Amino acid sequence: MKLHIGVLGPHTTTPEQYQLGLAVGRNIADAGAILFCGGLDGMMRAAAEGAKAAGGQTVGILPGTDKADANEFIDIGIPTDLGAYRNALLVRSCDAVIAVHGAYGTLSEIAFALRLKVPVIGLHTWSVSRDASPDPAIHVAQSADDAVAQAIRLITS
Amino acid sequence: MKLHIGVLGPHTTTPEQYQLGLAVGRNIADAGAILFCGGLDGMMRAAAEGAKAAGGQTVGILPGTDKADANEFIDIGIPTDLGAYRNALLVRSCDAVIAVHGAYGTLSEIAFALRLKVPVIGLHTWSVSRDASPDPAIHVAQSADDAVAQAIRLITS
Amino acid sequence: MKLHIGVLGPHTTTPEQYQLGLAVGRNIADAGAILFCGGLDGMMRAAAEGAKAAGGQTVGILPGTDKADANEFIDIGIPTDLGAYRNALLVRSCDAVIAVHGAYGTLSEIAFALRLKVPVIGLHTWSVSRDASPDPAIHVAQSADDAVAQAIRLITS
Amino acid sequence: MKLHIGVLGPHTTTPEQYQLGLAVGRNIADAGAILFCGGLDGMMRAAAEGAKAAGGQTVGILPGTDKADANEFIDIGIPTDLGAYRNALLVRSCDAVIAVHGAYGTLSEIAFALRLKVPVIGLHTWSVSRDASPDPAIHVAQSADDAVAQAIRLITS
Repeated sequence: MKLHIGVLGPHTTTPEQYQLGLAVGRNIADAGAILFCGGLDGMMRAAAEGAKAAGGQTVGILPGTDKADANEFIDIGIPTDLGAYRNALLVRSCDAVIAVHGAYGTLSEIAFALRLKVPVIGLHTWSVSRDASPDPAIHVAQSADDAVAQAIRLITS
Repeated sequence: MKLHIGVLGPHTTTPEQYQLGLAVGRNIADAGAILFCGGLDGMMRAAAEGAKAAGGQTVGILPGTDKADANEFIDIGIPTDLGAYRNALLVRSCDAVIAVHGAYGTLSEIAFALRLKVPVIGLHTWSVSRDASPDPAIHVAQSADDAVAQAIRLITS
Repeated sequence: MKLHIGVLGPHTTTPEQYQLGLAVGRNIADAGAILFCGGLDGMMRAAAEGAKAAGGQTVGILPGTDKADANEFIDIGIPTDLGAYRNALLVRSCDAVIAVHGAYGTLSEIAFALRLKVPVIGLHTWSVSRDASPDPAIHVAQSADDAVAQAIRLITS
Repeated sequence: MKLHIGVLGPHTTTPEQYQLGLAVGRNIADAGAILFCGGLDGMMRAAAEGAKAAGGQTVGILPGTDKADANEFIDIGIPTDLGAYRNALLVRSCDAVIAVHGAYGTLSEIAFALRLKVPVIGLHTWSVSRDASPDPAIHVAQSADDAVAQAIRLITS
């Protein structure tokens, strides 16, 4: 079965953030992995558009009840009706996740991934510290290429 | 987005039941829909094998944490770690479901579908009665062809 | 820890059904068990009112996000935001469940209980048949007293 | 209905951490709120023991299927069988949460609370930063008294 790489990020993006999402999605498809995301707008749409442009496959784990909520670049939309729990399901479905910017929803996905030992790569996103000491489990990437390369390496190592 | 048709059924099958599952899966693929199932053995494997033989696409909503649990005919396995709740998620993901034989897991999926107003077609499966009066909401089919035809008709009507 | 006995049933009730729910709730409290239910109206309210009248404790597993949705006889309301999945959580929380009348939501709870091997007692509720043969796993009761007595016996046997 | 205050924290504690948990639980009960926690060992046990010592009520949202998994200070154990998703359910059940130390499970609960707008008070626990800028949404407390006072204030404001 193909690798599943999740892209986590905000519902709304700046044009620059959208470009970054496109590049991450493209790299995921180029690596032969299936792109998983939340299926809606912003960073989720950017990554899915990038993956489709590179001939890849996309799955959207949707919060609501209607698969028509998915953006136009989602091949398979799963309408979970799980609300916030769907963030955990999205992470659970992936072999690794790449967080690109993001708000509290993305933070909850990062935290779930850390808890479930799903590798997390971060691009301009949250960092977390315990008792004032930074936690090294979020692998910081410098570019879309680097993020996807790290994801593949962490999954296969 | 393509239609999602779920096949519900037991973990173990007789050869005759397996043949029926193959035919249901084939018909789903021929109708241009994506086959959804629980991703494991028995009827789930039969339907997935049938769908792949007809060039279709298959999604398995798995109860555990490892997508390698999916049978060999599943294109995209979603390891939900939701245990019994995954039966509800499977039904929620579908535009219609076809129950073929089955035990209590299948019954719970049928009941969830009735509750969520997802059309249910039954092939040699459970029937339910309230205060001794049979409930007409499970659409009884006589064959694999009939089951898939009814599913398509109920979704698009 | 005390026994948890769930009461399953419809959102709206006739006066006669409400009386039956009151009696079931009273018997659960008299048996020293905690009443679990969906926390809302109809049969859920009847059973909770009965349990409180007999000095018992009540827990409501609510579908939404606000514990103020609970009826006035619920001591502890758990706002799950799980929608239909909460039916499965309610059953999972109980040592036995008593279904009193009910529609598809109740049927889904009965089916989940059968799947999870949680004993099910039925009072004027659904019956289920597989391949035209009635399934004996729903223990039919004749009265509120009988239902609670059967629940206690099935839990402790 | 009474307030629900959750205590989040690690499965194992130092004696000093356990004392802190006891004090938090005591203060929650003294404030007339119901203590919610994960129901297991370590900080969850400490807080429940503290709440019971002060005559309070305790609810444990358990990850597994057996309510006997709850520690001895839990009045009502809810066996959710939701695994990691139960962290989200615990937070969803609370009007405010107090995180005391903790590992990734606690971080996931903090993040879910931020996402769900459930007030979070932190005692020697995680802090989170976005694009290198600390997020102010975790209310840092200096003592058990301070933590519970802040929780009450945030809920009622």
